[in-house]
Amino acid sequence: MAKKDRVPAKTLKGFRDFSPSLALRRKAITDHIWHHAIQSGFEPIETPVLEYAETLLGSGGEEADKEVYLFEDHGGRRVGLRFDLTVPFSRFVAENQGTLTMPFKRVQIGNSYRGEKPQKGRYREFCQADVDIVGVDSLAADVEIITNIAVNLDQFVPSSFTMLIGHRVLLSALIKASLPNVDGDGEIKVLIALDKLAKVGDEKVLELILEVQGTTEEGAQSLLKVVTAKDVQGDSDLNLVRSTLASQEEALGEIDRLDQTLSILRDLKISKGKIRLDLSIARGLGYYTGIVFETFLDDLPNFGSISSGGRYNGLVSRFSKQEIPGIGGSIGVDRLLAALDELEKASEPERGGIFVAVATEDARAYGFRIVQELRGAGLKADIALKPGKLAQQFKYADKKHFAKVVTVGDEELAQETYSIKDLDSGVEEKQLPLVDMVASMKPH
Amino acid sequence: MAKKDRVPAKTLKGFRDFSPSLALRRKAITDHIWHHAIQSGFEPIETPVLEYAETLLGSGGEEADKEVYLFEDHGGRRVGLRFDLTVPFSRFVAENQGTLTMPFKRVQIGNSYRGEKPQKGRYREFCQADVDIVGVDSLAADVEIITNIAVNLDQFVPSSFTMLIGHRVLLSALIKASLPNVDGDGEIKVLIALDKLAKVGDEKVLELILEVQGTTEEGAQSLLKVVTAKDVQGDSDLNLVRSTLASQEEALGEIDRLDQTLSILRDLKISKGKIRLDLSIARGLGYYTGIVFETFLDDLPNFGSISSGGRYNGLVSRFSKQEIPGIGGSIGVDRLLAALDELEKASEPERGGIFVAVATEDARAYGFRIVQELRGAGLKADIALKPGKLAQQFKYADKKHFAKVVTVGDEELAQETYSIKDLDSGVEEKQLPLVDMVASMKPH
Repeated sequence: MAKKDRVPAKTLKGFRDFSPSLALRRKAITDHIWHHAIQSGFEPIETPVLEYAETLLGSGGEEADKEVYLFEDHGGRRVGLRFDLTVPFSRFVAENQGTLTMPFKRVQIGNSYRGEKPQKGRYREFCQADVDIVGVDSLAADVEIITNIAVNLDQFVPSSFTMLIGHRVLLSALIKASLPNVDGDGEIKVLIALDKLAKVGDEKVLELILEVQGTTEEGAQSLLKVVTAKDVQGDSDLNLVRSTLASQEEALGEIDRLDQTLSILRDLKISKGKIRLDLSIARGLGYYTGIVFETFLDDLPNFGSISSGGRYNGLVSRFSKQEIPGIGGSIGVDRLLAALDELEKASEPERGGIFVAVATEDARAYGFRIVQELRGAGLKADIALKPGKLAQQFKYADKKHFAKVVTVGDEELAQETYSIKDLDSGVEEKQLPLVDMVASMKPH
Repeated sequence: MAKKDRVPAKTLKGFRDFSPSLALRRKAITDHIWHHAIQSGFEPIETPVLEYAETLLGSGGEEADKEVYLFEDHGGRRVGLRFDLTVPFSRFVAENQGTLTMPFKRVQIGNSYRGEKPQKGRYREFCQADVDIVGVDSLAADVEIITNIAVNLDQFVPSSFTMLIGHRVLLSALIKASLPNVDGDGEIKVLIALDKLAKVGDEKVLELILEVQGTTEEGAQSLLKVVTAKDVQGDSDLNLVRSTLASQEEALGEIDRLDQTLSILRDLKISKGKIRLDLSIARGLGYYTGIVFETFLDDLPNFGSISSGGRYNGLVSRFSKQEIPGIGGSIGVDRLLAALDELEKASEPERGGIFVAVATEDARAYGFRIVQELRGAGLKADIALKPGKLAQQFKYADKKHFAKVVTVGDEELAQETYSIKDLDSGVEEKQLPLVDMVASMKPH
């Protein structure tokens, strides 16, 4: 091909290929999450990567809208790539509500797309594993989702982690109580400012809040005091919240529910994780209406959240007359993989399986017979794709981390035998009878 | 939410949601293909769904180009959704050739996108499972790919199937021999016409060929005769091909290689499949340069191909100075699922697992303790998300196909016991001690 016709081989910025070792690790994690969810009564669904633009826009907030990949398809429809699995799931629930048995518990693992600035561990194409429960607004559903995520993380995370539990309704009520002259848009700005507490600290957040119309120094101070106050266990101080919102009946109900939820969660046996109340947690996406949570790795505090979620009681009603409450949690699989890479160096893969080396053209069909026999017996087995120089074939088998090499040539073919070498010990045996091969290789 | 703000809940034309039962079946198939490939020495990779437009365009032929979803991203880059897994794989090989151990055998399972007319079993988003071998041009690699696909199909397909083996180079040589005045573009038109033989029959194909510039009635007749001639086994007649191309040395070498490939493939133990030579098979995509194959279900001859592939020795050189030969095969997972639906009615799911019903608010935390204990022991278990009416909870457990219901209420909580009912037999036992629960439920 002439040089000028050649196309540069490169991935798009923010996108990446997965090498075999990374792809194997991701598959191990996603399979575990999947099976654990199925075992816990969740049901798998799949939704398309492409949706109508109007399905996606206006549900995740302004920031999310800006990052959506939008375009016109061949039929002139305005379409977009999903930016999470929650909004398409809400569309799915609205479209199928006649046939779904409620409460409906779903698990979905797949890629989403955001045209945001790529950072360490943050890609424009990223895999998330989601569990959701729709059709019931109960603290049991909240417990079930958070438990599922916590038990999963307990498996994958090599060191300790912390799940911070917040509550969007209580946080809004606290903002209204402290800053009564702030309007709806202003409230969102205050939420966004509070969400930065861990990153930028109290003083900077105070500054950001005071930029919002209708705020007062005194109100902002008292708001910061109540959301950062800790009780004796190091959790947020629910008693202070209760007294601050003493006149608001609805908020008091939410406080009781949150209290009970935390009490059940504290009984949960997770060895590596702590679950802590932190009312400053607001979460980025605009659709949350109740409990919210984020999870951080204790050894990588600046890495950002590896799992998050919350209650979204209004999301399905964007698509349906019926109000269908929901709660969901999400593990950022690709972020988790990147974090694991930071925490532990990738180790050399273990040796395993049998490589069939073929010395001559005539022995090729015999080699295929052997490799298919080994595979049929459930063993990992591969075959040389060019007969010839054995030294080269052994080198290849070694590079590919095979444990043993079976060699066949004209002599083996004539006598229905095989030769075998163990690549770790170097021990070699020649002209063994083929009839005993599979039995001698199966683990005893 | 006001009605005018409501967004219609609907999937895009040609796209679809997967229900839990369909998602479970697809996962079973893709997991099997994946594990079989790993066992056979293939290595998994993942590439992005989005690529530079220039990576995708111009490799699959004009028809493929028209169907690519193209758009401009946030950075003004011209990008597109992949239309198969082969072209991105070639880009991957070119980009990573310094670090890959050749021959490199890869497996990849994922969705691709084509803006074509949706038909039965044909979607605009579709899942394919691909195996490929690059870095070697040997008949052993051809055998390995075709074997992998055939053994997989033997597992999933409930009735008999036929793999048709063709050869793009031999077919071109036969066209040149019969129709010497046809140019390059004309040759492709003749290939496309021949590819329709099974669908429209000899006479119609003859007409289509005669529309191409440079063809003659006599030449077209003799071409049709040689590509449809059968030997005694019902395969294409390689002897007739050999005599037709007797003066072309390169073609004779390809015939010998094809002959040997078929001989090894015929030894392969597949119980449901037949492998047959059919030189009229051309395949749609423009990048094939050698052996090609397509697979059809004998009971659904008009359903189209459920698996296909071929050799593409020039594809990587679109991206790289180095010539890297390759061969790949693909199972159309979504087409296969649709075919299985046609062949067999979906059966009622089997009962399994334990549902924990909770009679009172006070027993809720106790119920969570029980469900986590069951899950921890590896059993499938779920819990009611609202305490209260037991009749409703039993109904839900039945709809979700659970086998047993454990009930806990105030009495069970006080005495550390549980009650249990088998939903199939209706047998109920009350107030059993909790300490024995897990042991009594594990399969003996």
